[in-house]
Amino acid sequence: MAYIVDLRSDTVTKPTEAMKHAMVNSALGDDVYEEDPTVNALETKVAALLGKQAALFVPSGTMSNLIALMVHCQKRGQEAFVGHMSHIYKYEVATAAHVAGVHLSVLQNKPDGTFDLEYLKSHIQGTDIHEPISALVTVENTHNVCGGKVLPLKFLDDLGAICKKHNLPLHMDGARLFNAAVQSKEPAARIVRDCDSVSVCFSKGLSAPVGSCLVGSCHFIEQARRIRKMLGGGMRQVGVLAAAAIVALDEVVPLLSLDHKRAQRLAMVVNGLFLKSFSVDVEGVHTNILFISISENSPFNAEKVVQRLEQVSLSETQGDCKTPDDEGIIVKCLALDERRLRLVLHREINDEALWLAIMKITYVFREMDAMGKC
Amino acid sequence: MAYIVDLRSDTVTKPTEAMKHAMVNSALGDDVYEEDPTVNALETKVAALLGKQAALFVPSGTMSNLIALMVHCQKRGQEAFVGHMSHIYKYEVATAAHVAGVHLSVLQNKPDGTFDLEYLKSHIQGTDIHEPISALVTVENTHNVCGGKVLPLKFLDDLGAICKKHNLPLHMDGARLFNAAVQSKEPAARIVRDCDSVSVCFSKGLSAPVGSCLVGSCHFIEQARRIRKMLGGGMRQVGVLAAAAIVALDEVVPLLSLDHKRAQRLAMVVNGLFLKSFSVDVEGVHTNILFISISENSPFNAEKVVQRLEQVSLSETQGDCKTPDDEGIIVKCLALDERRLRLVLHREINDEALWLAIMKITYVFREMDAMGKC
Amino acid sequence: MAYIVDLRSDTVTKPTEAMKHAMVNSALGDDVYEEDPTVNALETKVAALLGKQAALFVPSGTMSNLIALMVHCQKRGQEAFVGHMSHIYKYEVATAAHVAGVHLSVLQNKPDGTFDLEYLKSHIQGTDIHEPISALVTVENTHNVCGGKVLPLKFLDDLGAICKKHNLPLHMDGARLFNAAVQSKEPAARIVRDCDSVSVCFSKGLSAPVGSCLVGSCHFIEQARRIRKMLGGGMRQVGVLAAAAIVALDEVVPLLSLDHKRAQRLAMVVNGLFLKSFSVDVEGVHTNILFISISENSPFNAEKVVQRLEQVSLSETQGDCKTPDDEGIIVKCLALDERRLRLVLHREINDEALWLAIMKITYVFREMDAMGKC
Amino acid sequence: MAYIVDLRSDTVTKPTEAMKHAMVNSALGDDVYEEDPTVNALETKVAALLGKQAALFVPSGTMSNLIALMVHCQKRGQEAFVGHMSHIYKYEVATAAHVAGVHLSVLQNKPDGTFDLEYLKSHIQGTDIHEPISALVTVENTHNVCGGKVLPLKFLDDLGAICKKHNLPLHMDGARLFNAAVQSKEPAARIVRDCDSVSVCFSKGLSAPVGSCLVGSCHFIEQARRIRKMLGGGMRQVGVLAAAAIVALDEVVPLLSLDHKRAQRLAMVVNGLFLKSFSVDVEGVHTNILFISISENSPFNAEKVVQRLEQVSLSETQGDCKTPDDEGIIVKCLALDERRLRLVLHREINDEALWLAIMKITYVFREMDAMGKC
Repeated sequence: MAYIVDLRSDTVTKPTEAMKHAMVNSALGDDVYEEDPTVNALETKVAALLGKQAALFVPSGTMSNLIALMVHCQKRGQEAFVGHMSHIYKYEVATAAHVAGVHLSVLQNKPDGTFDLEYLKSHIQGTDIHEPISALVTVENTHNVCGGKVLPLKFLDDLGAICKKHNLPLHMDGARLFNAAVQSKEPAARIVRDCDSVSVCFSKGLSAPVGSCLVGSCHFIEQARRIRKMLGGGMRQVGVLAAAAIVALDEVVPLLSLDHKRAQRLAMVVNGLFLKSFSVDVEGVHTNILFISISENSPFNAEKVVQRLEQVSLSETQGDCKTPDDEGIIVKCLALDERRLRLVLHREINDEALWLAIMKITYVFREMDAMGKC
Repeated sequence: MAYIVDLRSDTVTKPTEAMKHAMVNSALGDDVYEEDPTVNALETKVAALLGKQAALFVPSGTMSNLIALMVHCQKRGQEAFVGHMSHIYKYEVATAAHVAGVHLSVLQNKPDGTFDLEYLKSHIQGTDIHEPISALVTVENTHNVCGGKVLPLKFLDDLGAICKKHNLPLHMDGARLFNAAVQSKEPAARIVRDCDSVSVCFSKGLSAPVGSCLVGSCHFIEQARRIRKMLGGGMRQVGVLAAAAIVALDEVVPLLSLDHKRAQRLAMVVNGLFLKSFSVDVEGVHTNILFISISENSPFNAEKVVQRLEQVSLSETQGDCKTPDDEGIIVKCLALDERRLRLVLHREINDEALWLAIMKITYVFREMDAMGKC
Repeated sequence: MAYIVDLRSDTVTKPTEAMKHAMVNSALGDDVYEEDPTVNALETKVAALLGKQAALFVPSGTMSNLIALMVHCQKRGQEAFVGHMSHIYKYEVATAAHVAGVHLSVLQNKPDGTFDLEYLKSHIQGTDIHEPISALVTVENTHNVCGGKVLPLKFLDDLGAICKKHNLPLHMDGARLFNAAVQSKEPAARIVRDCDSVSVCFSKGLSAPVGSCLVGSCHFIEQARRIRKMLGGGMRQVGVLAAAAIVALDEVVPLLSLDHKRAQRLAMVVNGLFLKSFSVDVEGVHTNILFISISENSPFNAEKVVQRLEQVSLSETQGDCKTPDDEGIIVKCLALDERRLRLVLHREINDEALWLAIMKITYVFREMDAMGKC
Repeated sequence: MAYIVDLRSDTVTKPTEAMKHAMVNSALGDDVYEEDPTVNALETKVAALLGKQAALFVPSGTMSNLIALMVHCQKRGQEAFVGHMSHIYKYEVATAAHVAGVHLSVLQNKPDGTFDLEYLKSHIQGTDIHEPISALVTVENTHNVCGGKVLPLKFLDDLGAICKKHNLPLHMDGARLFNAAVQSKEPAARIVRDCDSVSVCFSKGLSAPVGSCLVGSCHFIEQARRIRKMLGGGMRQVGVLAAAAIVALDEVVPLLSLDHKRAQRLAMVVNGLFLKSFSVDVEGVHTNILFISISENSPFNAEKVVQRLEQVSLSETQGDCKTPDDEGIIVKCLALDERRLRLVLHREINDEALWLAIMKITYVFREMDAMGKC
């Protein structure tokens, strides 16, 4: 059997033993009646961590962002500003429009996940009867499609000031906020200081099986709770999931820096191959995500590379591209577009797995780079 | 400390030991990639149980019903028929209109949870440009607000024939379908034979902590999966919940008849008190839900009775209204409206708990009935 | 050629000569910039007539009602109370749900167009997280599907008091409000005294070609204007339509009592035929609409009668069923359902036309009644 | 009194005498029953002009575009491609999201109103469960916010081929399509050859008081008619408006080239002043819209210029800046943003009015340019 190194996403992480223990040993209740003590404990803990009043456990980051849109944009004909590379704009199945009825006003993301604040300022609107009313600004931190970038604190502070001045709430899609906190060595509460709401996920690098929290003021969460019910996100003895999330915060967050270190190493190894076809912007690797660029004139696209990395037996002469036990190695990753691969490090990729992945990647990249030279 | 007998709902049930064991010992994967083997096993199992092609695990019955509405009513300006006592119409936070954009065409439920089929037939519409287009019929089985009634098979068969004739899909909100199956001694698949989609819940009498399944054809479930993502119901290693649901089907469904028997007993005891103020339609108690009616001229309403049942120390002279260990007894139930109490039996109410509840109820009802006579 | 008496609806009325004169001689401007003096004059006039602050011209009664729903129910998961026979519930293409996202909570209309106020009171809700939040009550006056009934002032006053007490806005679909005012000899402003918004139509009995006004407070209309733009109801030199509406108010409203008188006459004639198959509840004919009931055991349904009334040459022996000029007579009306015909009197049906309609109706009804006897 | 030259928009145009004549002399009927012969005649005429099967009269261009979105994007979670400068994206009050529930996928408009077709191709999506399903491409022709630009036929043809290949319908917001046809000397039908639906407006340069037509296949228009009713756009004897639109097509379209010529002249005059602060891209003036740019370092913004142009008495020494009758001149135009004025030529601006406008503009621009120099 082959050894699989799954670098597609940190969402694939399975619960730890400590999580499993917590899941079956925590006190439970019916959370629709707000009687699940473990859920309540998690919500209190997360709110405190982010320096906000209250939190709400939800089944996914998509629901968390959706509820935020629905609470902040209650009135008819409103718009939320989103980056053109943001998860909300690209990967949430049109739900902002289809379910929330909110217009998305698109800001061009810069490579670092930020956007032009002057452009934002000049596009805040609300008086002309033809135009949507600006009601929300959103940011994503770390920024997934910009390569796991940590938004500069200066940008967030400047944006916060603009939002306050224009009385616009600010929502952070912090699916990987703790990665940002760990990398920047800033407390999460400092990073989200100017945000009116924040979504954080436990099921990505934090390794809990399921769940996110939406965080904000008591008044905000009260409305969010009603909308969660409307969307079908109200669950019963969901302390079984919250228990794992508590462990994730206590025991996995401190380990995130290891994922970042491994992402750096992998980036440097790829660049160290000095290939024409493959390169990584090493400095751009802030956290646990790295993008490998494929040069424009390569005769293969990203999908082809993904397929080759998933083949077990590469050839009879594949040499050292096997595990010590002579198994084949499968490396899974995603083709972000025609010319970019996304690889994500996470708790289940330890040094050994990273080593095997590097073996396989080295072999395949050299092989394909040679094709590119012909 | 007081002994609490919680009869508010079967949703309060906590997972069994066997469920806990399954939750931490089942194989897991990322269900967004459809890679969680336990989720896949549950979906296969439920589909087979109901004689349908496919199933989809979702966080709640509300989401399950919502997705059904959204898949069946894809076009603009469509309507779904619902009973005026149905959960979809009354208790799903306006989501049919607000999220799904579907008009609810209301049929008057009869006391047995059915509705007039002739009325339905004469209200199917779709040609007049002023009117919504009829696109779906829904039923609820067992019917919660009609007192846990099992819909007669004859009614379902006749309805199925009408739906087929008019090419209208039929959805069953089967949150408590297995109660109906157990009571009627019909296989669940027979009951839902003519339904195009069915929602079943694991977190009610079945005692699993969280979750429901939406069941239907492969094509239906394929669309449902996309809409689940849109609503934020896509979860990751959700096999932890599916594992408990599998146990619920195997080990708790066979016990449901005990809940029904206890509901019957409780009903007979209340009626046996021969009180002016309180009565139960014993024959109307089909499953695990019973309604206690308060006579119109009683000087107290249902909410008052609920409060009294929740008081620990009733009086110095409350006599035998204590547990053997001299604890007070709290009975929790819901005021359905001004003149009706709802009590729901479930796995956590064994004979002993029922006995304590009966003691307390007898004491309080006699006391309040005496007030009513003054 | 046949002489056509079109009793399908008062919407078929064409503009009068005075209206045409006004349409081409009134000052115009771009109403999106609020610069059309004729529109402004109409809006001021209608607001004053109804004793409210402001009005907004819209292309139809459906849009007028839709905007009212959208302004009153701004928040998520809200409901509006509507009668089960109301135009909003039955004939507005599911727009309350599909476009406005508003849940319709259905009240059973009594034959007089009212509903049970106690039932309403006991169904106002907003605290339980499962339930829609009650945000609006609507009435229809005169009530079309209840036969053009004028709502009793006492009912409106009692309802107004309930709404005020519960802080619920009240909207009147007054498509035929002026018929109610004329019949009850109450000023329109008195009738709508407790309403927060009113929709009135100019294109029904009032004979203007197109248009309605939505009426309410300045703050309400300001929001309505924005939503009108969102729906695509903002028009440019629409003074051409407003001009006709002004004439309608001045010159046609005073004539409405003639329509009511003719409806009465027609009702009495039909009843005076002493037929088994056809009857009218003469006392129930309040305004310009009458329903003719077809007895349950008649061998034909309403649609058959409609078709027969539309045939030009009934038979060689149809005797006096011709116009004086020997033309055939076509009477058009609507089959409301299997057993009811709806006939609507209006400005274009003068005494002469009514006389011809009566000839034809008498002939056809006697003929069909004879069939019924066989 | 001052003489007003209103260059804010071609929507301000009032009906011609011929239109007025037609409005009161055309046959009318109830268009909700599809019985208005003038509306039917207009719809047939417009469909033929554009080489399509059918058309539908609607109250506005906004509604026309909205209905197109709602018909083409019937399924849940779909997206329409729009330019970031398009009317649909910027000026339709968020209705695509709020009313239609359609996600707008934003393409960056080039200065000529087109967008990058390669970018479009690489963003057509529909298989990944996270992403909206691409369901529609839209273009605007002429392109308002790009300065009344006529889209190159080559672009439209290439786009049409892409849409066909990917089975994506193509909608043209042709609010000013006839300006494009006149300028390019191509028949309108040729320009929209590859479009599945087109919206054209009669109330802009064509001078009719109110209305637009949505044009497409019979099947498309059948669905559009239903959705028009849902939005409240169904009107009664609306032949009064359609009559004017017919005249507009026959008598005003041939005059549009005069507007274009006058726009050219005005552009050249402004540039001929050789001012530092004001300039026009003369070659970019394709049709009846011109943008005047204000240089970045000018001490005033566009709004200031608008205000100055609207002042009647500029100063005692304003010299020849008066009409021959010694009235003051008011020139109205719009500030598109901080540094751009929009001026629109139309039927009511004849050579005389243009001459007066030029006098005023010359005076004010010279005056303000002098300020800029200090």
